[in-house]
Amino acid sequence: MERDKNFKMNVETITSRKNKYILRLRRLAAEAAFRREEREYVCDGMKLLKEAVEKGAEIRSVLWKEAPESVEGLSCSRQYSAPAELFDYASPMKNSPGPVFTVAMEGGKEGRLGNAIALETLQDPGNVGTVLRTAKALGIGAVILTGDCADIYSPKAVRSSMGAVFCQRVMYASRRELGELAAREGLKLYAAVLSDRAEDIRRLDLKKAIVCVGSEGRGLSRELIELCAGEVIIPMKPGSESLNAAVAAAIIMWEMSR
Amino acid sequence: MERDKNFKMNVETITSRKNKYILRLRRLAAEAAFRREEREYVCDGMKLLKEAVEKGAEIRSVLWKEAPESVEGLSCSRQYSAPAELFDYASPMKNSPGPVFTVAMEGGKEGRLGNAIALETLQDPGNVGTVLRTAKALGIGAVILTGDCADIYSPKAVRSSMGAVFCQRVMYASRRELGELAAREGLKLYAAVLSDRAEDIRRLDLKKAIVCVGSEGRGLSRELIELCAGEVIIPMKPGSESLNAAVAAAIIMWEMSR
Repeated sequence: MERDKNFKMNVETITSRKNKYILRLRRLAAEAAFRREEREYVCDGMKLLKEAVEKGAEIRSVLWKEAPESVEGLSCSRQYSAPAELFDYASPMKNSPGPVFTVAMEGGKEGRLGNAIALETLQDPGNVGTVLRTAKALGIGAVILTGDCADIYSPKAVRSSMGAVFCQRVMYASRRELGELAAREGLKLYAAVLSDRAEDIRRLDLKKAIVCVGSEGRGLSRELIELCAGEVIIPMKPGSESLNAAVAAAIIMWEMSR
Repeated sequence: MERDKNFKMNVETITSRKNKYILRLRRLAAEAAFRREEREYVCDGMKLLKEAVEKGAEIRSVLWKEAPESVEGLSCSRQYSAPAELFDYASPMKNSPGPVFTVAMEGGKEGRLGNAIALETLQDPGNVGTVLRTAKALGIGAVILTGDCADIYSPKAVRSSMGAVFCQRVMYASRRELGELAAREGLKLYAAVLSDRAEDIRRLDLKKAIVCVGSEGRGLSRELIELCAGEVIIPMKPGSESLNAAVAAAIIMWEMSR
Protein backbone atom coordinates (compact mmCIF):
# COMPACT_ATOMS: atom_id res chain seq x y z
CA MET A 1 0.00 0.00 0.00
CA GLU A 2 1.18 3.48 -0.77
CA ARG A 3 1.68 5.59 2.29
CA ASP A 4 1.99 9.28 1.78
CA LYS A 5 2.50 11.40 4.83
CA ASN A 6 1.74 14.51 2.86
CA PHE A 7 -1.48 13.18 1.44
CA LYS A 8 -3.73 16.21 1.12
CA MET A 9 -7.07 15.55 2.68
CA ASN A 10 -9.94 16.79 0.66
CA VAL A 11 -12.60 16.57 3.33
CA GLU A 12 -16.20 17.21 2.41
CA THR A 13 -18.45 18.62 5.11
CA ILE A 14 -21.85 16.96 5.49
CA THR A 15 -24.71 18.73 7.18
CA SER A 16 -27.84 16.75 6.32
CA ARG A 17 -29.23 13.52 7.74
CA LYS A 18 -30.44 12.74 4.27
CA ASN A 19 -26.97 12.79 2.79
CA LYS A 20 -26.38 9.56 0.83
CA TYR A 21 -23.14 8.72 2.60
CA ILE A 22 -24.74 9.11 6.04
CA LEU A 23 -27.62 6.86 5.02
CA ARG A 24 -25.21 4.29 3.62
CA LEU A 25 -23.10 4.30 6.79
CA ARG A 26 -26.15 3.69 8.93
CA ARG A 27 -27.26 0.87 6.70
CA LEU A 28 -23.79 -0.74 6.72
CA ALA A 29 -23.81 -0.56 10.52
CA ALA A 30 -27.29 -2.02 10.85
CA GLU A 31 -27.68 -4.68 8.14
CA ALA A 32 -25.51 -7.78 7.85
CA ALA A 33 -26.96 -8.62 4.42
CA PHE A 34 -26.11 -5.16 3.09
CA ARG A 35 -22.56 -5.51 4.43
CA ARG A 36 -22.15 -8.83 2.64
CA GLU A 37 -23.56 -7.37 -0.58
CA GLU A 38 -21.25 -4.36 -0.48
CA ARG A 39 -18.33 -6.30 1.03
CA GLU A 40 -17.77 -3.37 3.36
CA TYR A 41 -18.16 -2.79 7.09
CA VAL A 42 -18.07 0.01 9.66
CA CYS A 43 -15.40 0.54 12.31
CA ASP A 44 -15.20 3.07 15.10
CA GLY A 45 -12.46 5.08 16.75
CA MET A 46 -8.96 6.39 16.22
CA LYS A 47 -7.24 3.36 17.74
CA LEU A 48 -8.92 1.00 15.28
CA LEU A 49 -8.26 3.39 12.37
CA LYS A 50 -4.53 3.38 13.13
CA GLU A 51 -4.63 -0.40 13.44
CA ALA A 52 -6.38 -0.67 10.06
CA VAL A 53 -3.73 1.52 8.43
CA GLU A 54 -0.95 -0.50 10.05
CA LYS A 55 -2.45 -3.83 8.98
CA GLY A 56 -2.91 -2.59 5.41
CA ALA A 57 -6.70 -2.89 5.42
CA GLU A 58 -8.47 -1.21 2.50
CA ILE A 59 -10.08 1.84 4.09
CA ARG A 60 -12.89 3.01 1.84
CA SER A 61 -14.17 6.10 3.66
CA VAL A 62 -13.74 8.09 6.86
CA LEU A 63 -16.25 10.30 8.67
CA TRP A 64 -14.72 12.71 11.16
CA LYS A 65 -16.54 14.21 14.12
CA GLU A 66 -16.08 17.90 13.46
CA ALA A 67 -12.37 18.55 12.76
CA PRO A 68 -10.47 15.94 10.69
CA GLU A 69 -7.19 14.72 12.11
CA SER A 70 -4.07 13.64 10.36
CA VAL A 71 -3.20 9.93 10.54
CA GLU A 72 0.19 8.79 9.35
CA GLY A 73 -0.06 6.40 6.43
CA LEU A 74 -3.80 6.92 5.89
CA SER A 75 -4.52 7.08 2.20
CA CYS A 76 -8.24 7.44 1.64
CA SER A 77 -9.76 9.87 -0.80
CA ARG A 78 -13.31 9.70 0.57
CA GLN A 79 -13.14 11.67 3.77
CA TYR A 80 -16.01 13.57 5.30
CA SER A 81 -16.71 15.56 8.41
CA ALA A 82 -19.97 16.22 10.21
CA PRO A 83 -21.06 18.35 13.16
CA ALA A 84 -21.22 16.42 16.45
CA GLU A 85 -24.97 15.85 16.40
CA LEU A 86 -25.01 14.53 12.84
CA PHE A 87 -21.94 12.41 13.53
CA ASP A 88 -23.71 10.84 16.54
CA TYR A 89 -26.68 10.10 14.30
CA ALA A 90 -24.43 8.31 11.80
CA SER A 91 -22.21 6.50 14.32
CA PRO A 92 -23.12 2.99 15.54
CA MET A 93 -21.55 3.78 18.92
CA LYS A 94 -22.96 6.17 21.49
CA ASN A 95 -20.83 9.16 22.50
CA SER A 96 -18.01 8.15 20.19
CA PRO A 97 -15.22 10.71 19.89
CA GLY A 98 -14.94 9.50 16.29
CA PRO A 99 -13.98 8.92 13.59
CA VAL A 100 -16.03 6.16 12.01
CA PHE A 101 -14.69 4.57 8.87
CA THR A 102 -15.51 1.80 6.44
CA VAL A 103 -13.25 -1.07 5.42
CA ALA A 104 -13.44 -3.52 2.53
CA MET A 105 -13.95 -7.16 3.50
CA GLU A 106 -10.98 -9.17 2.43
CA GLY A 107 -11.14 -11.94 -0.11
CA GLY A 108 -10.87 -15.46 1.26
CA LYS A 109 -7.35 -16.18 2.43
CA GLU A 110 -5.63 -19.09 0.77
CA GLY A 111 -3.55 -21.92 2.12
CA ARG A 112 -3.97 -24.84 4.48
CA LEU A 113 -5.77 -24.27 7.73
CA GLY A 114 -3.52 -26.01 10.25
CA ASN A 115 -6.24 -25.77 12.87
CA ALA A 116 -9.38 -23.78 13.57
CA ILE A 117 -12.09 -22.96 16.06
CA ALA A 118 -15.68 -23.20 14.87
CA LEU A 119 -18.49 -21.25 16.55
CA GLU A 120 -22.07 -22.43 16.21
CA THR A 121 -24.90 -19.94 16.81
CA LEU A 122 -22.93 -17.68 19.12
CA GLN A 123 -25.27 -14.72 19.18
CA ASP A 124 -23.37 -12.22 21.26
CA PRO A 125 -21.31 -10.05 18.88
CA GLY A 126 -18.93 -9.12 21.72
CA ASN A 127 -18.15 -12.81 22.27
CA VAL A 128 -17.59 -13.42 18.54
CA GLY A 129 -15.22 -10.44 18.33
CA THR A 130 -13.37 -11.58 21.45
CA VAL A 131 -12.90 -15.08 19.99
CA LEU A 132 -11.41 -13.50 16.85
CA ARG A 133 -9.02 -11.42 18.95
CA THR A 134 -7.94 -14.45 21.00
CA ALA A 135 -7.54 -16.62 17.87
CA LYS A 136 -5.20 -14.05 16.37
CA ALA A 137 -3.15 -13.72 19.56
CA LEU A 138 -2.79 -17.50 19.89
CA GLY A 139 -2.11 -18.14 16.21
CA ILE A 140 -5.21 -20.21 15.41
CA GLY A 141 -5.58 -20.83 11.65
CA ALA A 142 -9.16 -19.66 11.27
CA VAL A 143 -12.39 -18.81 13.03
CA ILE A 144 -15.27 -20.60 11.31
CA LEU A 145 -18.83 -19.36 11.82
CA THR A 146 -21.69 -21.80 11.45
CA GLY A 147 -25.39 -21.75 12.27
CA ASP A 148 -26.88 -18.42 13.25
CA CYS A 149 -23.82 -16.61 14.64
CA ALA A 150 -23.60 -12.89 15.25
CA ASP A 151 -22.00 -11.23 12.22
CA ILE A 152 -18.29 -10.71 12.75
CA TYR A 153 -18.60 -7.50 10.73
CA SER A 154 -21.22 -5.95 13.02
CA PRO A 155 -19.87 -2.80 14.70
CA LYS A 156 -19.84 -4.41 18.14
CA ALA A 157 -18.00 -7.54 17.02
CA VAL A 158 -15.49 -5.44 15.07
CA ARG A 159 -14.84 -3.35 18.18
CA SER A 160 -14.37 -6.42 20.43
CA SER A 161 -11.97 -7.94 17.90
CA MET A 162 -9.59 -5.03 18.54
CA GLY A 163 -8.30 -5.06 14.99
CA ALA A 164 -8.10 -8.86 14.61
CA VAL A 165 -10.87 -8.49 12.02
CA PHE A 166 -8.28 -6.90 9.71
CA CYS A 167 -6.02 -9.94 9.62
CA GLN A 168 -7.51 -13.06 11.22
CA ARG A 169 -8.89 -15.61 8.75
CA VAL A 170 -12.68 -15.97 9.06
CA MET A 171 -14.74 -18.55 7.19
CA TYR A 172 -18.45 -19.22 6.89
CA ALA A 173 -19.66 -22.80 6.56
CA SER A 174 -22.84 -24.76 6.91
CA ARG A 175 -22.57 -27.69 9.32
CA ARG A 176 -22.17 -30.08 6.42
CA GLU A 177 -19.49 -27.94 4.79
CA LEU A 178 -17.66 -27.85 8.11
CA GLY A 179 -17.49 -31.65 8.10
CA GLU A 180 -16.26 -31.64 4.50
CA LEU A 181 -13.68 -28.95 5.25
CA ALA A 182 -12.25 -30.95 8.15
CA ALA A 183 -11.98 -34.06 5.96
CA ARG A 184 -10.36 -32.13 3.11
CA GLU A 185 -7.82 -30.46 5.39
CA GLY A 186 -7.05 -33.66 7.26
CA LEU A 187 -8.19 -32.17 10.56
CA LYS A 188 -10.09 -33.91 13.32
CA LEU A 189 -13.46 -32.34 14.06
CA TYR A 190 -14.28 -32.18 17.78
CA ALA A 191 -17.39 -31.03 19.62
CA ALA A 192 -16.94 -29.20 22.92
CA VAL A 193 -19.79 -30.48 25.09
CA LEU A 194 -20.80 -30.89 28.71
CA SER A 195 -20.94 -34.67 28.82
CA ASP A 196 -19.37 -37.32 31.00
CA ARG A 197 -18.38 -39.26 27.91
CA ALA A 198 -16.35 -36.40 26.50
CA GLU A 199 -12.57 -36.50 26.70
CA ASP A 200 -10.66 -34.03 28.88
CA ILE A 201 -9.11 -31.45 26.50
CA ARG A 202 -5.75 -31.90 28.24
CA ARG A 203 -5.59 -35.53 27.17
CA LEU A 204 -6.04 -35.04 23.43
CA ASP A 205 -3.69 -33.73 20.80
CA LEU A 206 -5.61 -30.76 19.44
CA LYS A 207 -2.81 -29.50 17.21
CA LYS A 208 -4.46 -30.68 13.97
CA ALA A 209 -8.07 -30.16 14.84
CA ILE A 210 -11.15 -28.03 14.42
CA VAL A 211 -12.98 -27.69 17.74
CA CYS A 212 -16.63 -26.61 17.68
CA VAL A 213 -18.00 -24.41 20.47
CA GLY A 214 -21.71 -23.70 20.89
CA SER A 215 -23.71 -21.05 22.67
CA GLU A 216 -23.85 -21.01 26.46
CA GLY A 217 -27.54 -21.61 26.63
CA ARG A 218 -28.03 -24.37 24.14
CA GLY A 219 -24.61 -25.84 23.43
CA LEU A 220 -23.98 -27.46 20.05
CA SER A 221 -26.70 -28.82 17.80
CA ARG A 222 -27.22 -32.57 17.65
CA GLU A 223 -26.56 -32.38 13.91
CA LEU A 224 -23.10 -30.89 14.39
CA ILE A 225 -22.17 -33.21 17.27
CA GLU A 226 -22.98 -36.18 15.04
CA LEU A 227 -20.63 -34.87 12.34
CA CYS A 228 -17.76 -34.76 14.83
CA ALA A 229 -15.14 -37.45 15.32
CA GLY A 230 -15.15 -36.97 19.07
CA GLU A 231 -16.37 -34.97 22.05
CA VAL A 232 -14.16 -32.89 24.34
CA ILE A 233 -14.76 -31.16 27.64
CA ILE A 234 -13.05 -28.50 29.74
CA PRO A 235 -13.08 -30.11 33.18
CA MET A 236 -14.91 -27.97 35.74
CA LYS A 237 -15.57 -28.09 39.46
CA PRO A 238 -18.84 -29.66 40.59
CA GLY A 239 -21.67 -27.13 40.75
CA SER A 240 -20.36 -25.13 37.79
CA GLU A 241 -22.42 -25.60 34.71
CA SER A 242 -20.64 -23.60 32.13
CA LEU A 243 -18.14 -20.96 31.17
CA ASN A 244 -18.72 -17.81 29.17
CA ALA A 245 -18.53 -18.91 25.49
CA ALA A 246 -15.58 -16.63 24.68
CA VAL A 247 -13.75 -17.93 27.77
CA ALA A 248 -14.43 -21.57 26.86
CA ALA A 249 -13.20 -20.93 23.31
CA ALA A 250 -10.10 -19.19 24.71
CA ILE A 251 -9.17 -22.12 26.95
CA ILE A 252 -9.66 -24.53 24.05
CA MET A 253 -7.56 -22.40 21.68
CA TRP A 254 -4.90 -22.13 24.36
CA GLU A 255 -4.76 -25.94 24.57
CA MET A 256 -4.69 -26.16 20.76
CA SER A 257 -1.62 -23.93 20.61
CA ARG A 258 -0.02 -24.92 23.92
CA MET B 1 -31.77 -22.94 55.24
CA GLU B 2 -35.36 -23.89 55.71
CA ARG B 3 -37.10 -24.73 52.49
CA ASP B 4 -40.83 -24.80 52.54
CA LYS B 5 -42.57 -25.68 49.32
CA ASN B 6 -45.87 -24.51 50.69
CA PHE B 7 -44.55 -21.18 51.89
CA LYS B 8 -47.45 -18.78 51.50
CA MET B 9 -46.42 -15.70 49.66
CA ASN B 10 -47.71 -12.52 51.15
CA VAL B 11 -47.00 -10.24 48.23
CA GLU B 12 -47.49 -6.51 48.59
CA THR B 13 -48.39 -4.57 45.47
CA ILE B 14 -46.48 -1.34 44.90
CA THR B 15 -47.85 1.36 42.65
CA SER B 16 -45.78 4.46 43.36
CA ARG B 17 -42.32 5.48 42.22
CA LYS B 18 -41.88 7.13 45.58
CA ASN B 19 -42.35 3.88 47.47
CA LYS B 20 -39.45 3.40 49.88
CA TYR B 21 -38.62 -0.10 48.67
CA ILE B 22 -38.47 1.06 45.03
CA LEU B 23 -36.18 3.94 45.98
CA ARG B 24 -33.97 1.62 48.00
CA LEU B 25 -33.72 -0.91 45.14
CA ARG B 26 -32.64 1.80 42.73
CA ARG B 27 -30.06 3.06 45.17
CA LEU B 28 -28.70 -0.45 45.79
CA ALA B 29 -28.40 -0.92 42.04
CA ALA B 30 -26.67 2.40 41.47
CA GLU B 31 -24.36 3.00 44.44
CA ALA B 32 -21.48 0.74 45.40
CA ALA B 33 -20.97 2.60 48.70
CA PHE B 34 -24.62 2.09 49.67
CA ARG B 35 -24.35 -1.62 48.84
CA ARG B 36 -21.31 -1.94 51.09
CA GLU B 37 -23.07 -0.05 53.88
CA GLU B 38 -26.19 -2.20 53.68
CA ARG B 39 -24.26 -5.40 52.80
CA GLU B 40 -26.90 -6.11 50.19
CA TYR B 41 -26.97 -6.18 46.39
CA VAL B 42 -29.44 -6.48 43.53
CA CYS B 43 -29.81 -9.44 41.16
CA ASP B 44 -31.98 -9.89 38.12
CA GLY B 45 -33.93 -12.72 36.57
CA MET B 46 -35.53 -16.05 37.36
CA LYS B 47 -32.45 -18.10 36.47
CA LEU B 48 -30.32 -16.23 38.99
CA LEU B 49 -33.10 -16.38 41.62
CA LYS B 50 -33.24 -20.17 41.34
CA GLU B 51 -29.45 -20.30 41.52
CA ALA B 52 -29.49 -18.12 44.65
CA VAL B 53 -32.04 -20.44 46.30
CA GLU B 54 -30.01 -23.49 45.33
CA LYS B 55 -26.75 -22.03 46.65
CA GLY B 56 -28.40 -21.05 49.93
CA ALA B 57 -27.86 -17.31 49.48
CA GLU B 58 -29.77 -15.09 51.92
CA ILE B 59 -32.49 -13.56 49.76
CA ARG B 60 -33.74 -10.41 51.47
CA SER B 61 -36.47 -9.24 49.09
CA VAL B 62 -38.07 -10.00 45.74
CA LEU B 63 -39.86 -7.64 43.35
CA TRP B 64 -42.04 -9.36 40.78
CA LYS B 65 -43.02 -7.89 37.45
CA GLU B 66 -46.79 -8.07 37.64
CA ALA B 67 -47.75 -11.61 38.71
CA PRO B 68 -45.59 -13.35 41.34
CA GLU B 69 -44.41 -16.84 40.50
CA SER B 70 -43.75 -19.76 42.74
CA VAL B 71 -40.13 -20.82 43.19
CA GLU B 72 -39.36 -24.07 44.93
CA GLY B 73 -37.37 -23.54 48.08
CA LEU B 74 -37.70 -19.76 48.09
CA SER B 75 -38.26 -18.53 51.59
CA CYS B 76 -38.44 -14.78 51.66
CA SER B 77 -41.07 -12.81 53.53
CA ARG B 78 -40.48 -9.51 51.77
CA GLN B 79 -42.05 -10.01 48.38
CA TYR B 80 -43.55 -7.26 46.26
CA SER B 81 -45.08 -6.89 42.85
CA ALA B 82 -45.29 -3.87 40.59
CA PRO B 83 -46.96 -3.07 37.27
CA ALA B 84 -44.62 -3.44 34.26
CA GLU B 85 -43.81 0.25 33.93
CA LEU B 86 -42.95 0.69 37.59
CA PHE B 87 -40.97 -2.54 37.58
CA ASP B 88 -38.93 -1.27 34.62
CA TYR B 89 -38.28 1.93 36.55
CA ALA B 90 -36.97 -0.05 39.52
CA SER B 91 -35.01 -2.68 37.55
CA PRO B 92 -31.34 -2.10 36.72
CA MET B 93 -31.80 -4.06 33.48
CA LYS B 94 -33.73 -2.87 30.47
CA ASN B 95 -36.69 -4.97 29.33
CA SER B 96 -36.19 -7.50 32.08
CA PRO B 97 -38.92 -10.12 32.39
CA GLY B 98 -38.20 -9.99 36.13
CA PRO B 99 -38.03 -10.62 38.98
CA VAL B 100 -35.36 -8.50 40.65
CA PHE B 101 -34.28 -9.49 44.11
CA THR B 102 -31.78 -8.49 46.76
CA VAL B 103 -29.23 -10.72 48.44
CA ALA B 104 -27.15 -10.28 51.58
CA MET B 105 -23.40 -10.09 51.04
CA GLU B 106 -21.70 -12.97 52.72
CA GLY B 107 -19.27 -12.60 55.55
CA GLY B 108 -15.62 -13.20 54.69
CA LYS B 109 -15.01 -16.89 54.09
CA GLU B 110 -12.46 -18.52 56.32
CA GLY B 111 -9.62 -20.89 55.67
CA ARG B 112 -6.42 -20.96 53.67
CA LEU B 113 -6.47 -19.59 50.16
CA GLY B 114 -4.57 -22.22 48.19
CA ASN B 115 -4.31 -19.88 45.23
CA ALA B 116 -5.98 -16.76 43.88
CA ILE B 117 -6.30 -14.38 40.98
CA ALA B 118 -5.99 -10.67 41.74
CA LEU B 119 -7.52 -8.01 39.49
CA GLU B 120 -6.16 -4.49 39.53
CA THR B 121 -8.36 -1.63 38.27
CA LEU B 122 -10.44 -3.77 35.94
CA GLN B 123 -13.21 -1.31 35.20
CA ASP B 124 -15.55 -3.35 33.06
CA PRO B 125 -18.13 -4.98 35.38
CA GLY B 126 -18.83 -7.65 32.73
CA ASN B 127 -15.17 -8.69 32.80
CA VAL B 128 -15.08 -8.77 36.61
CA GLY B 129 -18.20 -10.96 36.71
CA THR B 130 -16.81 -13.25 34.02
CA VAL B 131 -13.58 -13.70 35.98
CA LEU B 132 -15.63 -14.68 39.04
CA ARG B 133 -17.57 -17.22 37.00
CA THR B 134 -14.38 -18.71 35.52
CA ALA B 135 -12.66 -18.80 38.93
CA LYS B 136 -15.54 -20.78 40.36
CA ALA B 137 -15.60 -23.24 37.44
CA LEU B 138 -11.85 -23.83 37.65
CA GLY B 139 -11.72 -24.03 41.46
CA ILE B 140 -9.55 -20.97 42.12
CA GLY B 141 -9.38 -20.13 45.85
CA ALA B 142 -10.36 -16.47 45.62
CA VAL B 143 -10.77 -13.47 43.39
CA ILE B 144 -9.02 -10.48 44.95
CA LEU B 145 -9.95 -6.98 43.85
CA THR B 146 -7.41 -4.21 44.19
CA GLY B 147 -7.10 -0.63 42.94
CA ASP B 148 -10.18 0.88 41.32
CA CYS B 149 -12.00 -2.25 40.09
CA ALA B 150 -15.61 -2.35 39.03
CA ASP B 151 -17.74 -3.46 41.99
CA ILE B 152 -18.44 -7.19 41.87
CA TYR B 153 -21.86 -6.46 43.39
CA SER B 154 -22.93 -4.08 40.60
CA PRO B 155 -25.93 -5.49 38.71
CA LYS B 156 -23.89 -6.04 35.52
CA ALA B 157 -21.06 -7.89 37.28
CA VAL B 158 -23.54 -10.02 39.22
CA ARG B 159 -25.27 -10.96 35.97
CA SER B 160 -21.98 -11.86 34.22
CA SER B 161 -20.95 -13.98 37.20
CA MET B 162 -23.90 -16.30 36.50
CA GLY B 163 -24.40 -17.11 40.15
CA ALA B 164 -20.70 -17.43 41.05
CA VAL B 165 -21.22 -14.33 43.21
CA PHE B 166 -23.25 -16.51 45.60
CA CYS B 167 -20.40 -18.88 46.36
CA GLN B 168 -17.01 -17.78 45.02
CA ARG B 169 -14.71 -16.21 47.61
CA VAL B 170 -14.05 -12.52 46.89
CA MET B 171 -11.61 -10.35 48.79
CA TYR B 172 -10.73 -6.67 48.72
CA ALA B 173 -7.16 -5.62 49.38
CA SER B 174 -4.95 -2.61 48.89
CA ARG B 175 -1.78 -3.34 46.95
CA ARG B 176 0.21 -3.46 50.16
CA GLU B 177 -2.31 -5.80 51.82
CA LEU B 178 -2.09 -8.04 48.77
CA GLY B 179 1.65 -8.40 49.30
CA GLU B 180 1.11 -9.16 52.99
CA LEU B 181 -1.62 -11.67 52.22
CA ALA B 182 0.63 -13.57 49.80
CA ALA B 183 3.42 -13.70 52.39
CA ARG B 184 1.04 -14.82 55.15
CA GLU B 185 -0.50 -17.56 53.02
CA GLY B 186 2.86 -18.74 51.69
CA LEU B 187 1.87 -17.95 48.09
CA LYS B 188 4.06 -16.51 45.37
CA LEU B 189 2.81 -13.21 44.02
CA TYR B 190 3.19 -12.89 40.25
CA ALA B 191 2.47 -9.99 37.90
CA ALA B 192 1.04 -10.78 34.46
CA VAL B 193 2.77 -8.30 32.16
CA LEU B 194 3.70 -7.80 28.53
CA SER B 195 7.45 -7.85 28.90
CA ASP B 196 10.26 -9.82 27.29
CA ARG B 197 11.74 -10.50 30.70
CA ALA B 198 8.59 -12.19 31.97
CA GLU B 199 8.45 -15.97 32.25
CA ASP B 200 6.16 -18.03 30.03
CA ILE B 201 3.19 -19.12 32.20
CA ARG B 202 3.65 -22.70 30.97
CA ARG B 203 7.10 -22.87 32.53
CA LEU B 204 6.18 -21.93 36.09
CA ASP B 205 4.40 -23.82 38.79
CA LEU B 206 1.39 -21.61 39.50
CA LYS B 207 -0.30 -24.03 41.90
CA LYS B 208 0.58 -22.03 45.02
CA ALA B 209 0.40 -18.54 43.63
CA ILE B 210 -1.56 -15.33 43.38
CA VAL B 211 -1.37 -13.95 39.84
CA CYS B 212 -2.20 -10.26 39.30
CA VAL B 213 -3.94 -9.18 36.11
CA GLY B 214 -4.34 -5.52 35.15
CA SER B 215 -6.60 -3.63 32.81
CA GLU B 216 -6.15 -3.99 29.06
CA GLY B 217 -5.29 -0.38 28.49
CA ARG B 218 -2.84 0.29 31.27
CA GLY B 219 -1.71 -3.07 32.58
CA LEU B 220 -0.57 -3.33 36.20
CA SER B 221 0.68 -0.40 38.26
CA ARG B 222 4.40 -0.06 38.82
CA GLU B 223 3.70 -0.21 42.57
CA LEU B 224 2.06 -3.63 42.32
CA ILE B 225 4.66 -5.05 39.90
CA GLU B 226 7.37 -4.10 42.39
CA LEU B 227 5.58 -6.00 45.17
CA CYS B 228 5.58 -9.17 43.05
CA ALA B 229 8.14 -11.96 43.26
CA GLY B 230 8.15 -12.43 39.49
CA GLU B 231 6.61 -11.51 36.16
CA VAL B 232 4.70 -13.89 33.91
CA ILE B 233 3.42 -13.65 30.35
CA ILE B 234 0.94 -15.49 28.15
CA PRO B 235 2.97 -16.00 24.97
CA MET B 236 1.27 -14.41 21.95
CA LYS B 237 1.91 -14.27 18.22
CA PRO B 238 3.82 -11.25 16.91
CA GLY B 239 1.53 -8.34 16.07
CA SER B 240 -0.90 -9.15 18.88
CA GLU B 241 -0.68 -6.74 21.71
CA SER B 242 -3.11 -8.06 24.20
CA LEU B 243 -6.00 -10.27 25.13
CA ASN B 244 -9.33 -9.28 26.60
CA ALA B 245 -8.72 -9.02 30.38
CA ALA B 246 -11.27 -11.74 31.24
CA VAL B 247 -9.72 -14.03 28.60
CA ALA B 248 -6.18 -13.40 29.89
CA ALA B 249 -7.34 -14.12 33.44
CA ALA B 250 -9.09 -17.31 32.23
CA ILE B 251 -5.97 -18.67 30.52
CA ILE B 252 -3.91 -17.91 33.64
CA MET B 253 -6.47 -19.56 35.95
CA TRP B 254 -6.58 -22.55 33.61
CA GLU B 255 -2.79 -22.90 33.93
CA MET B 256 -3.06 -22.48 37.72
CA SER B 257 -5.47 -25.38 37.94
CA ARG B 258 -4.18 -27.45 35.02
